[in-house]
Amino acid sequence: MNGNPSPPGSLWPLPKFWTKSSSIVSISAKESFSYKTTVNDCEVLNRALKRYSWEFLFRNLSVTPGNHLPILSTVEVEISNGSENQCDAYPQLVKDLEYEAYNLTISKDATEGRARIVAKTVWGAIRGLETFSQLIWTNGESNQHFVNETVITDYPRFPHRGLMIDSARHFLPVSIIEQVLEAMSYNKMNVLHWHIVDDQSFPFVSATFPELSKKGAYLPELIYEPSDVKHLIDFARDRGIRVVLEFDTPGHTQGFGKAFPNLITPCFGDGVSPGTANYPIHAAYEIFNPMDENTYTFMTEFLTEIVKNVSKDQYVHLGMDEVYYACWQSSPVIAEFMRNNSFTEMKEVQQYYTERVLENIKNIGGHPIIWHDPIEFGVVPDKDVIVQVWKGNDTDPWEPYMERVLKGGYQVLLSSCWYLNYINYGESWKKYYECDPILPNITIEEANLVLGGEAALWAEYVDATNILPRLFPFVGAVAERLWSPANSSTTADAKHRLDEHRCRLLWRGVPAQPIYNGYCHMTEKYGILPRVEYSYGNTISVTFLLLFMASAVAIIH
Amino acid sequence: MNGNPSPPGSLWPLPKFWTKSSSIVSISAKESFSYKTTVNDCEVLNRALKRYSWEFLFRNLSVTPGNHLPILSTVEVEISNGSENQCDAYPQLVKDLEYEAYNLTISKDATEGRARIVAKTVWGAIRGLETFSQLIWTNGESNQHFVNETVITDYPRFPHRGLMIDSARHFLPVSIIEQVLEAMSYNKMNVLHWHIVDDQSFPFVSATFPELSKKGAYLPELIYEPSDVKHLIDFARDRGIRVVLEFDTPGHTQGFGKAFPNLITPCFGDGVSPGTANYPIHAAYEIFNPMDENTYTFMTEFLTEIVKNVSKDQYVHLGMDEVYYACWQSSPVIAEFMRNNSFTEMKEVQQYYTERVLENIKNIGGHPIIWHDPIEFGVVPDKDVIVQVWKGNDTDPWEPYMERVLKGGYQVLLSSCWYLNYINYGESWKKYYECDPILPNITIEEANLVLGGEAALWAEYVDATNILPRLFPFVGAVAERLWSPANSSTTADAKHRLDEHRCRLLWRGVPAQPIYNGYCHMTEKYGILPRVEYSYGNTISVTFLLLFMASAVAIIH
Repeated sequence: MNGNPSPPGSLWPLPKFWTKSSSIVSISAKESFSYKTTVNDCEVLNRALKRYSWEFLFRNLSVTPGNHLPILSTVEVEISNGSENQCDAYPQLVKDLEYEAYNLTISKDATEGRARIVAKTVWGAIRGLETFSQLIWTNGESNQHFVNETVITDYPRFPHRGLMIDSARHFLPVSIIEQVLEAMSYNKMNVLHWHIVDDQSFPFVSATFPELSKKGAYLPELIYEPSDVKHLIDFARDRGIRVVLEFDTPGHTQGFGKAFPNLITPCFGDGVSPGTANYPIHAAYEIFNPMDENTYTFMTEFLTEIVKNVSKDQYVHLGMDEVYYACWQSSPVIAEFMRNNSFTEMKEVQQYYTERVLENIKNIGGHPIIWHDPIEFGVVPDKDVIVQVWKGNDTDPWEPYMERVLKGGYQVLLSSCWYLNYINYGESWKKYYECDPILPNITIEEANLVLGGEAALWAEYVDATNILPRLFPFVGAVAERLWSPANSSTTADAKHRLDEHRCRLLWRGVPAQPIYNGYCHMTEKYGILPRVEYSYGNTISVTFLLLFMASAVAIIH
Repeated sequence: MNGNPSPPGSLWPLPKFWTKSSSIVSISAKESFSYKTTVNDCEVLNRALKRYSWEFLFRNLSVTPGNHLPILSTVEVEISNGSENQCDAYPQLVKDLEYEAYNLTISKDATEGRARIVAKTVWGAIRGLETFSQLIWTNGESNQHFVNETVITDYPRFPHRGLMIDSARHFLPVSIIEQVLEAMSYNKMNVLHWHIVDDQSFPFVSATFPELSKKGAYLPELIYEPSDVKHLIDFARDRGIRVVLEFDTPGHTQGFGKAFPNLITPCFGDGVSPGTANYPIHAAYEIFNPMDENTYTFMTEFLTEIVKNVSKDQYVHLGMDEVYYACWQSSPVIAEFMRNNSFTEMKEVQQYYTERVLENIKNIGGHPIIWHDPIEFGVVPDKDVIVQVWKGNDTDPWEPYMERVLKGGYQVLLSSCWYLNYINYGESWKKYYECDPILPNITIEEANLVLGGEAALWAEYVDATNILPRLFPFVGAVAERLWSPANSSTTADAKHRLDEHRCRLLWRGVPAQPIYNGYCHMTEKYGILPRVEYSYGNTISVTFLLLFMASAVAIIH
């Protein structure tokens, strides 16, 4: 196999500090290449070293060490022995950026190259391994592959670098979510925000309330069993990625309502009968019922399962977006409830619901993230909630929404400018790249409240058929914005690196779509390379690779 | 396997006449199901019958004939014996719509169902087979599959129902183009317009001028060998699809210029030196050189290869779009050429080139299609050229372009409103669906000049990673517009049928993207079903299917 199929030695996202010498070392042949670590029994690290195997880097390429060049055959990966290395933990939100930091040095003597990754935690080591894998390049004229003498000191700009996916508008197969996680790790992203249920479907299988998915899933098969969720959380953890589950209430809850209709507020479309619609103002039943104690009992039980038995993350996303008042306004029962509580404005009903559910989650031991809508409506939750800003568009700038949340003293995540579902013709990644979560007019104190952000891919028009090319490489623009120092690159420079990064993604079997004219490597002759990934020791991906080659042969003959 | 994985019995595109009874017959089990024909030795038909096999219709479903229902086990397909059945031909542009017409009747007696497709040509029979395959439905509660008693008389509204793909901005693997052709046939489309080369790359291997791809292809591997082109033309023919090759000149010819720089006009950026640029007005070399006799000699030799040895279609697309004059205007040599020929306007130079090349192709025995630009610039080609209208956008309506071509008396193909590369958020298929090539203000005579149209997918941002979900099911909107009678459906009705059609495409292994919220069938649990298609007897697709199931099992356990 010829061409230039190996990663091109450019980095995505850019590291904090990077010194590169023109002096090079040559990568050894397969037989002599290995990773080495002195840390004991760090299974997460061991699996990471297996993933970044020679086969992953080079697939079926023939690699010949260069003549007269120092040969790099061992990559040392060092983290501390002991609990601070996080080997027994799931990654968490940690504002100390050392949590994912690493140093990477590639040096040499006359005959030998030496690569060394040093990190405080296994998460830092995983980031360093990704960087190492990206430094390898080839001149395309031989089977030789090289790395330059290099010193990198790297850590992220923000601790929360996320991607939101939506498995309620369309079901997403577990294998596809795996591929999303793999490709996120190639972009050093660290949070999968899983909007797992919504009005349209409830694929999440609750052990406490199995009726939810039995009645709420699109089909009995289109569900996430507890074992699926656990598998994906563990799959993410192995890549230093948190999984934050979202269970959006009190709106977007028709999915809950299929099994438990009593949770939903009856609207009074005709003014007198509960459960009557008044289209297009409101449906017959809308939004969780904030007056009914059963709602809170249900939420306590449900969230207890999530916090104690399902999520491995400290945070749960509670939604709280798009609470439209039309249904509540139609209801004489809500009116009475308001009188009884001396509420004069509808937002006090929303405040009441918000406060009780936030209190619930705290009592259970969970930490909440919510969309910014309650703040927007004048609801004032506790300061320990993380607020995710999503509103804003071409005619309604997002910055004032962000400012309002920051002025409120809340920690914030930005998503407004990173809605990847709003597709456009052309180089639309550029506007993602040029959006920065740190507004120029905010105080240092406010800037410290910005934890990062999340790209969001709502799935009205997205499923397994198109999610991967839609996400990649575009989401990389968000990833670099959130990892690399501000102003470390220009959009013009980023374009070429992102194009090279997309070729690297293709080489790894991610069907990342093109960002301009051109090509990556000769394997495009035969279609998309299959995934090459160690999936807990099974060898299906290798079989796929063989079959890919076989089908290629069948096509050309 | 449960769920509702079988085609839902709705048709896409809608037929001309369709009578459906509520009385039903049940499809037989695999062992007893067969197609029957009395035509002798029609290999194209035999291969079509093999393609629409039981396995294709039902994949690995268990199918049980219904109790107490007439059983349909034989589908008769009749075409005439003799040359008029087209079995030995390649499909061509034939304005007599009987060319693709068919009758389909499904009837029954007490115990037996009977299905019969009658067509004049094998192309009509192939359309009828597709319709038959779409009529099968299941209630999802048993393993029984049904068709209603039905009488369909069907033929297309337009004889040219095309899709343009572009393999120059990005290389498209042969296997991907095969899948495009398969899915086109599921939409009864009949022309693949293959924009095979352009400025960016020249993947077409010419036997006469092998230097073209040697120097012009992105990589030595990213080429279409004569055998690839022949394979795809034959693959298309088997589905009643013409392949029209486009070799765009005199603009868009940097691809030719890599091997033959002398073909390209030197520009005079500095006013005196040939081959100097004046950015951003013009490059150093642009557009074929219309003054040089070698250009015409080259074109004659090149087009002779295409017409005599490569294309099986009567038509060759000659491009002729986007001839910008800046380079020619910079050239004192062009100025002298104009004086020598008593040309006063630059468009006369374009006219000169256009005429000579159109004359060339006629002398060789080929028929030309061109983009509408020459007409727009006042060039007046012969009336036997087919003109494809592509300009127009939100602020520059396409209708006047179309009218101008029709007023000129040219046969026309519409593409302006069907540029699938200009992506937008949401239900963008609707605007494709609502665009009609017959303008309300034209004469009957002008309407008769409208041969149909083509969806176009330029590939600046498209390659193997995203082409299939980008095309399907959206291109179906164009397909139904061009096949079905005008006003045979509303956009609101079409939405539901197109959604069902997309599920059918998914079931056949086409990764057609969703057009709104929802789901198709339980196989979505595991990802995209692989292609199931008889590829001249090879069994790779079956292997893929087994592997798909194996990987599904691996994921869930």
